[in-house]
Amino acid sequence: MDAPELIAGVRAGDRRALARSITHVEADTATGRQLLAGLYAHTGRATTIGVTGSAGVGKSTFVAALAREQRRRGRTVGIVAVDPSSPFSNGAILGDRIRMQDLTGDGGVFMRSMASRGNLGGLSEMATGVVDLMDAAGFDVVILETVGAGQDEVEVATATGTTVLVTTPAGGDDIQSMKAGLMEIAQVLVVNKADIAGADTAVMQLRALLAIASERTWEPPILKTTAREDKGLDEVSAAIDRHQAHLKASAHADEERRALAQSQIVALARGLVQRRALAFARAEGILGQLVEEVAERRRDPRAAADALVDAVQRNWSRAD
Amino acid sequence: MDAPELIAGVRAGDRRALARSITHVEADTATGRQLLAGLYAHTGRATTIGVTGSAGVGKSTFVAALAREQRRRGRTVGIVAVDPSSPFSNGAILGDRIRMQDLTGDGGVFMRSMASRGNLGGLSEMATGVVDLMDAAGFDVVILETVGAGQDEVEVATATGTTVLVTTPAGGDDIQSMKAGLMEIAQVLVVNKADIAGADTAVMQLRALLAIASERTWEPPILKTTAREDKGLDEVSAAIDRHQAHLKASAHADEERRALAQSQIVALARGLVQRRALAFARAEGILGQLVEEVAERRRDPRAAADALVDAVQRNWSRAD
Repeated sequence: MDAPELIAGVRAGDRRALARSITHVEADTATGRQLLAGLYAHTGRATTIGVTGSAGVGKSTFVAALAREQRRRGRTVGIVAVDPSSPFSNGAILGDRIRMQDLTGDGGVFMRSMASRGNLGGLSEMATGVVDLMDAAGFDVVILETVGAGQDEVEVATATGTTVLVTTPAGGDDIQSMKAGLMEIAQVLVVNKADIAGADTAVMQLRALLAIASERTWEPPILKTTAREDKGLDEVSAAIDRHQAHLKASAHADEERRALAQSQIVALARGLVQRRALAFARAEGILGQLVEEVAERRRDPRAAADALVDAVQRNWSRAD
Repeated sequence: MDAPELIAGVRAGDRRALARSITHVEADTATGRQLLAGLYAHTGRATTIGVTGSAGVGKSTFVAALAREQRRRGRTVGIVAVDPSSPFSNGAILGDRIRMQDLTGDGGVFMRSMASRGNLGGLSEMATGVVDLMDAAGFDVVILETVGAGQDEVEVATATGTTVLVTTPAGGDDIQSMKAGLMEIAQVLVVNKADIAGADTAVMQLRALLAIASERTWEPPILKTTAREDKGLDEVSAAIDRHQAHLKASAHADEERRALAQSQIVALARGLVQRRALAFARAEGILGQLVEEVAERRRDPRAAADALVDAVQRNWSRAD
């Protein structure tokens, strides 16, 4: 199937066309770019939800439970899970797919787990493109699951309408450190595994952190869930709906839309510019020469990095 | 104190000069760059150890215990802890400093916790510069603690001589997913909190993952620790020493040194190039125009990112 056929298929809700389109976008092929260009005008209808949090908080279980709750509300659900395997790994992980198994028999749910592409960066970047495909395919809700640790993941998480941060009572450490920054980008805060001790303490810690955060027009609710038992997801869904209504009613709706567009462009451009600039520096022998100088301790790495970027800036326009 | 005075102070082992120099490097001032340039020729003597792993595995406790073990071996220790607060946060976290308290009375230990700089990226990048300062200041061992989640952190972790990956038995999920990639960059694997159930299972899981990893000349040992009780650190230190000896004896020592230099340059250049390119795109109004087009769904984010990088490539050499 070529791009026009795939575009027609995706818009008609054909699952096979959607699956193939995702593969193109994930691999960043020329067809994939045509698909995104052709389908983008048809996006913006879905409620997009980012779910983030560190490893071990039960994000995948939470996402599965949230999807079931959305189904109970009569909505179709697309899920994009970004595997947290690092750029150095080639192995795709099946864990979260297994946890999603009970959803796979449901025709109203479409799940895609993105594997590492085996090169530096680029995986998280492609995820927002996959969200756009599912949006264009007509899903009412699209959930994007990421690990909320690195900067790339933070940017991906903010590239959705509503961002949900998942923590656990066990992560006392977590809440104190990791979350301080993430909290400022989340509109709904969840303490998952609320059946284990310390859930109320975790809620209080989050509330204290919120109190010192910068002022805002939306006050993030702090909710408890036990996703493994499907508990608390109704409140989470209601909070997401309230935030969506807030977004639409906001006097700053245009600003919000521009902020979202800017996050998405910047997240993609960051990866692109560094890959293309470094590829140029390599091809021109700029990197190799600097590596020798640093290895022999004739120049420090910071000065070498400066020199590399200066050389790219001066000469890049002469490249093809 | 100006740069030449600070350089002399650092080389003489003056703690106040070192502390001030670190502040300059952390803030990326002109003096900081002069310091790195002036001191780099005096680095390379210290054993540099990267300690990484996700939040909640007890990395800070592990680092404190490892530092104590190194002190027992008669070595002086510098510690650089990169706070895992996200780029969105301005808050520095005191948690790990508190855990280090028992070391702060020891004149043979120098600890620095790096706070978020409050802007996008750049924090982890500066960490290797701080490691270089401590190296030049004469510490026998410099330990760099990072959260091993994002790509930036992975690059920082690899920019040390020996990388230690810390996991826990509790992180079954973790070991299955997160670690697959990180394992390939670690030379020593540790299951911390070995007093809780499942430590041996975790070791077996790590061993199974290692078996499918790409071939290598160094076989990473898998060790159990209970850092909270100072248990198992002697074996970890011995493994680090063996790896350091392996590095020096290696027929590929020059290659290893060049690979390390390249990791350091690339880690720094990635951040620099994207910040400078995006600042240029903003200043020239390239970004603003593309944001409008995407917000109005006239162009998709991926195409906009491409257009942004193209425009930077064409016009960047005309900037100052």
